[in-house]
Amino acid sequence: MIATFTDFGTQGPYLGQMEMAFRRLAPAVPVVHLLADAPVFDPMASAYLLAALAQDTPPGTVLLSVVDPGVGGDRIPMVVKVDGRWLVGPDNGLFEPLIRRAVSVEAWEIVWRPERLSATFHGRDLFAPVAARLALGQGPDAAGLRPMMVPRRPHWPDDLGRVIYFDHYGNAWTGLRAAMVEGEHMEVAGHRLRKARTFGELAPGEAFWYENSSGLVEIAVNGGRADRLSGIESGAFVTI
Amino acid sequence: MIATFTDFGTQGPYLGQMEMAFRRLAPAVPVVHLLADAPVFDPMASAYLLAALAQDTPPGTVLLSVVDPGVGGDRIPMVVKVDGRWLVGPDNGLFEPLIRRAVSVEAWEIVWRPERLSATFHGRDLFAPVAARLALGQGPDAAGLRPMMVPRRPHWPDDLGRVIYFDHYGNAWTGLRAAMVEGEHMEVAGHRLRKARTFGELAPGEAFWYENSSGLVEIAVNGGRADRLSGIESGAFVTI
Amino acid sequence: MIATFTDFGTQGPYLGQMEMAFRRLAPAVPVVHLLADAPVFDPMASAYLLAALAQDTPPGTVLLSVVDPGVGGDRIPMVVKVDGRWLVGPDNGLFEPLIRRAVSVEAWEIVWRPERLSATFHGRDLFAPVAARLALGQGPDAAGLRPMMVPRRPHWPDDLGRVIYFDHYGNAWTGLRAAMVEGEHMEVAGHRLRKARTFGELAPGEAFWYENSSGLVEIAVNGGRADRLSGIESGAFVTI
Repeated sequence: MIATFTDFGTQGPYLGQMEMAFRRLAPAVPVVHLLADAPVFDPMASAYLLAALAQDTPPGTVLLSVVDPGVGGDRIPMVVKVDGRWLVGPDNGLFEPLIRRAVSVEAWEIVWRPERLSATFHGRDLFAPVAARLALGQGPDAAGLRPMMVPRRPHWPDDLGRVIYFDHYGNAWTGLRAAMVEGEHMEVAGHRLRKARTFGELAPGEAFWYENSSGLVEIAVNGGRADRLSGIESGAFVTI
Repeated sequence: MIATFTDFGTQGPYLGQMEMAFRRLAPAVPVVHLLADAPVFDPMASAYLLAALAQDTPPGTVLLSVVDPGVGGDRIPMVVKVDGRWLVGPDNGLFEPLIRRAVSVEAWEIVWRPERLSATFHGRDLFAPVAARLALGQGPDAAGLRPMMVPRRPHWPDDLGRVIYFDHYGNAWTGLRAAMVEGEHMEVAGHRLRKARTFGELAPGEAFWYENSSGLVEIAVNGGRADRLSGIESGAFVTI
Repeated sequence: MIATFTDFGTQGPYLGQMEMAFRRLAPAVPVVHLLADAPVFDPMASAYLLAALAQDTPPGTVLLSVVDPGVGGDRIPMVVKVDGRWLVGPDNGLFEPLIRRAVSVEAWEIVWRPERLSATFHGRDLFAPVAARLALGQGPDAAGLRPMMVPRRPHWPDDLGRVIYFDHYGNAWTGLRAAMVEGEHMEVAGHRLRKARTFGELAPGEAFWYENSSGLVEIAVNGGRADRLSGIESGAFVTI
């Protein structure tokens, strides 16, 4: 299976153009678009979101991950194999939390280049063909990869205590794994929130936090929208 | 074929995560996302929309339908077989209009539970695996179902005389089947509208209603947007 | 492979309903949604966008293209074969730039009609079944086509010097092929912009134009959004 994680947007041609690049090489491999509205041009916030969502993918999945403000510059295109899953994308920190939490990690630089490589769309021209080859079971050599040291970002935190994503219901996702949080209360933008297990435990209109279905701390309002609370916005700091 | 009808939004990870759950069990079954922006947390409005869209699905389709504000509470997870189509989702009225209009109906409670069941995402953890098994041709027993009485909402109307959905062009869908409407005129939010067959019959800027491609009464403006007419909003009452 | 290019929107049921119509006839043919937010009701702007995106599709692709304000009127439903790709859609100019730039072109009128043909959704009822048959390898006769003269719009320009699309990053696409532009500067809405190859060449906040990954002139702001520049809006004229 190929899964995609990008900041391309659900609208526009980019997701379809990348999918078409898969289909040319691997027409029978299922493709699932896991997220297309990752934080735009923000590899750090995206990285903690990706780490949470990647857990959900079956072993052997090729997860094409493109949040790539440095496209066309000198960042390295890479593949990381993390606990049996392949990750394909730019070396800009996007895979750091996954690497840090992994039991086994290997890394490769993508040395293969296509005949036509646009300056701004490596998702379609470079990463998608490599992902398709890995999904077809080709080994790193055949896919055009060369082993490299696993790149690390030692100064990044283990969890990111900030709001990183808003879903369709207006709930605010943070980069904190709920299992790492010991207390029952947290503060964000001046709001003091208690923990709940489901929405049913709360009074209408009450704000709270809970462990969401991807294991992250999520801020919600029972019968309302957290994105309408003052100061709850992308990047807002969360303190336990 | 598996089709999905949800209020998850086209953005965000939920649709992809649910699709991934199908793919684990039924990688070769086609999946079509029929609607991802059903009225949020509104099973009643969603029910009349679902009934209109479900007609369009081929017999044998498994239609995963999740508009589920009571997730994590005590509403029953269920499967209904309605005139040869399988519907999988919560017992909260979402299937009432389909059941009422059906020739043959059978119902089952989902008694199977997965190893990991999140409190807030039964679409991925509970409904999707059941839908995948039914799509693979497994019978109710093998899919973890137990027969139950067909649940009914006798106080719900046969058709819903309200605005329930706005499409990309700004047209307003109602919960009324056009075939049930005898007159040529209707009123909504103080606007008196006449019936037309196609947009071409009208003056530019004229508001009207017509039978849309799913058989429902739809309010539109020739060369304009009905969602910009005063008072035409979700829940607005429509009278014939 | 079937690819879709429409103004249906990514939200709402239309894309899924059309995909379901493919799946009934051709369940194993891959379907890629290339663009669902083409300029609404604007066949001319859409045509120059389609011509750029169609280049990217493999030979043999069936490209279902529906931007069809005249649906239900007297415009002809048609198929054009352009350099080995099938295009299926309304005869309203949508294929003009593709036809004009082609080496080989053939055209057919769709004379087949389905049992049920809604007045407003030929994408689902008429075009999708024809596209599915062509994707299955059926010939024009079996697909219900009759040869016609290739329709032309001689007064349309070779390239369209206007803003025709905004992507998820706020970049403005024009209908101009970059390869046709000789100068280094252009003007749009009073902004004088220079050409760059990648974002990295520019100062933060600087507006510029470049050849995008589909070969068109695109207006962008380094680290910003072109859709926030004054006067950069759909239809704005671009002069070299």
